[in-house]
Amino acid sequence: MTPEPTDFVETQYATFCAPPNELVLKSGARLGPITLAYETYGNLNEDKSNAIMVYHTLTSDAHAAGWHKDAKKPGWWDPMIGPGKAFDTDKYFVICSNVIGSCMGSTGPASINPKTNKRYGLSFPVVTIEDMVLTQKLLLDHLGIPRLLCAAGGSMGGLQALEWAVTYPQAVRSVICIAANTRHSAQQIALHEVSRQAIMSDPDWQGGDYYGKSVPARGLAVSRMIGHITYMSEKSMEEKFGRKLISKEKLGYDFTHDFEVENYLKYRSDSFVQRFDANSYLYLSKALDYFDLAEDGKLVDAFAPATASFLIVSFTSDWLYPSYQSKQIVKALKANDIDVSDIEINSSYGHDAFLVEVEGQSNLITHFLNRIRKAAHVGAG
Amino acid sequence: MTPEPTDFVETQYATFCAPPNELVLKSGARLGPITLAYETYGNLNEDKSNAIMVYHTLTSDAHAAGWHKDAKKPGWWDPMIGPGKAFDTDKYFVICSNVIGSCMGSTGPASINPKTNKRYGLSFPVVTIEDMVLTQKLLLDHLGIPRLLCAAGGSMGGLQALEWAVTYPQAVRSVICIAANTRHSAQQIALHEVSRQAIMSDPDWQGGDYYGKSVPARGLAVSRMIGHITYMSEKSMEEKFGRKLISKEKLGYDFTHDFEVENYLKYRSDSFVQRFDANSYLYLSKALDYFDLAEDGKLVDAFAPATASFLIVSFTSDWLYPSYQSKQIVKALKANDIDVSDIEINSSYGHDAFLVEVEGQSNLITHFLNRIRKAAHVGAG
Repeated sequence: MTPEPTDFVETQYATFCAPPNELVLKSGARLGPITLAYETYGNLNEDKSNAIMVYHTLTSDAHAAGWHKDAKKPGWWDPMIGPGKAFDTDKYFVICSNVIGSCMGSTGPASINPKTNKRYGLSFPVVTIEDMVLTQKLLLDHLGIPRLLCAAGGSMGGLQALEWAVTYPQAVRSVICIAANTRHSAQQIALHEVSRQAIMSDPDWQGGDYYGKSVPARGLAVSRMIGHITYMSEKSMEEKFGRKLISKEKLGYDFTHDFEVENYLKYRSDSFVQRFDANSYLYLSKALDYFDLAEDGKLVDAFAPATASFLIVSFTSDWLYPSYQSKQIVKALKANDIDVSDIEINSSYGHDAFLVEVEGQSNLITHFLNRIRKAAHVGAG
Repeated sequence: MTPEPTDFVETQYATFCAPPNELVLKSGARLGPITLAYETYGNLNEDKSNAIMVYHTLTSDAHAAGWHKDAKKPGWWDPMIGPGKAFDTDKYFVICSNVIGSCMGSTGPASINPKTNKRYGLSFPVVTIEDMVLTQKLLLDHLGIPRLLCAAGGSMGGLQALEWAVTYPQAVRSVICIAANTRHSAQQIALHEVSRQAIMSDPDWQGGDYYGKSVPARGLAVSRMIGHITYMSEKSMEEKFGRKLISKEKLGYDFTHDFEVENYLKYRSDSFVQRFDANSYLYLSKALDYFDLAEDGKLVDAFAPATASFLIVSFTSDWLYPSYQSKQIVKALKANDIDVSDIEINSSYGHDAFLVEVEGQSNLITHFLNRIRKAAHVGAG
């Protein structure tokens, strides 16, 4: 599986908005310089018309496909991006950018504030989905690409794709939005708020000023456990774990772990704590909760500027971003006479289906992109 | 609303199993003496045939109905228990008993271990739903009542009612089981496990030995927030809170609370921390997770000893104890040719519907109990 050394991908970095030209964020705060980590796959064609930007989920990164040197696994959307795959790198130039606020190579709360030479911590300004997309447009300009063939993403990435479509309608021909919505419901906000409280309740959090000291590992682990429950469906948890015991023949009658599902949550949350910054979780979850494409107006009006063709995908068992929210997007797009294809994929994997249901999504995306590419007479890179 | 002083109810206490006659728990551990807090409403008739035992939820108590002196609200099931109500105290003698492991007046981890004169803490043995029911049978014997007209409860109380029906078939004529199941699914275990981890991750928890020191308030609060999300449905949260902001015209762009739903979670969890013991939450959630009426066998076989008539109630929007689990109970009962009535009540209130949907349940329970009472020729107390 591991590729030849020459085929390894490397993360790249671009920096913008150095003072005094800081970015003015949606909150009114100024931020700069801003570094974005990004990766690209495939080749840009001559007229720069074959670029696709894929947007990642809350805790993911710019490494969407291929292998890093010495890595144990490929990028997070590798089954979908590569030669002959849905995002076919023989045809398309695929860009994946990390987001501001993250800890995966881009400017975020763990970054050094050049004005103080200290980590930002909670002095980092609250960023929004709009701010993320604004910086990703700066990246596209930096790469000299006037217009995306497609803006595509799932979960938080889906929100970014939708935001791009209404903010930069002239800079995108098509949008693929998977397992996402246009604004968080009370339940989604509540689930994030509990996660934030778990982090901020950890004494090691220390108001966000924990860098170089103990990280709030316990709070972040609890937060991640909540996340994993919401990513799976009741059915997929039941099929995977049921009431299976770990190794004991009998229940332990104590407060160590009895059930495999308990072990799973611990294993997943422990590994998450190793790789992710607690403050970034606070910032990115807040960005998701704040996002409201319609901004208290009507969704149909919010989509009025959009000119792209849309593919809207949801999953039957996804209770974190339920299908009815995707159907609201479809309805608002249709009311604007916008070209929209939509499908609710039958899956028991819950929100995780976005990364698990490869075959169904591959077929959909391949045909959708073929149609867009042919209509726009786009040549391969 | 507040009653005349003569009408106030008072919690009573009964103690059993003093050494050397300790109770042998399901785990094999011995526990004694055991005190149970309980209340009664109405009058026992001459032939002691009109007694109904109601079982409470995880965090509730023996105070099911009426008013305590100086109380600001009545018992937790007051809309259902009283003269002319579903559990009509003009006809029935209603008993509500707290459970072992709780902190609401019964022997639990916060109790003094008479052998050490110190609080049990985590030296308290892990108790099960079976153990709870066993002690409640001792209470019934103590009251001199040979047979219940009905065993009734919702959520954890529903599990106890079912357990009673198969363990003491000769001591119960009918069972009302609301929003419950016969064993926890992987998702239910996972939700409890995150709650337990939130508590045990709080440094103030100190391995359960926090009595007289700081209680693990932060962990218990996070745990309760998770609980409240699972008690409501997505729809009821949306209808009650949506994206309503607290008091600000705008988003705060900081990590204080912006949304009303965030405030609600904080308010509810803060008040919970004032009244409930964190260790009891660990013990009772574990008892729920351990419960498996079929004990890895077939549910139909597990119900074979039962002779009571059953009323099984569930709610359409309850995702914590989903209706399909109630339907499994009904199916297993019918396979045993047992008299069973079942209804799935249309409600948007989620698991909370058990306490909210008074009218629908009142009608159901009134008619069910009338039928049972008439068939058994039971006179009023």
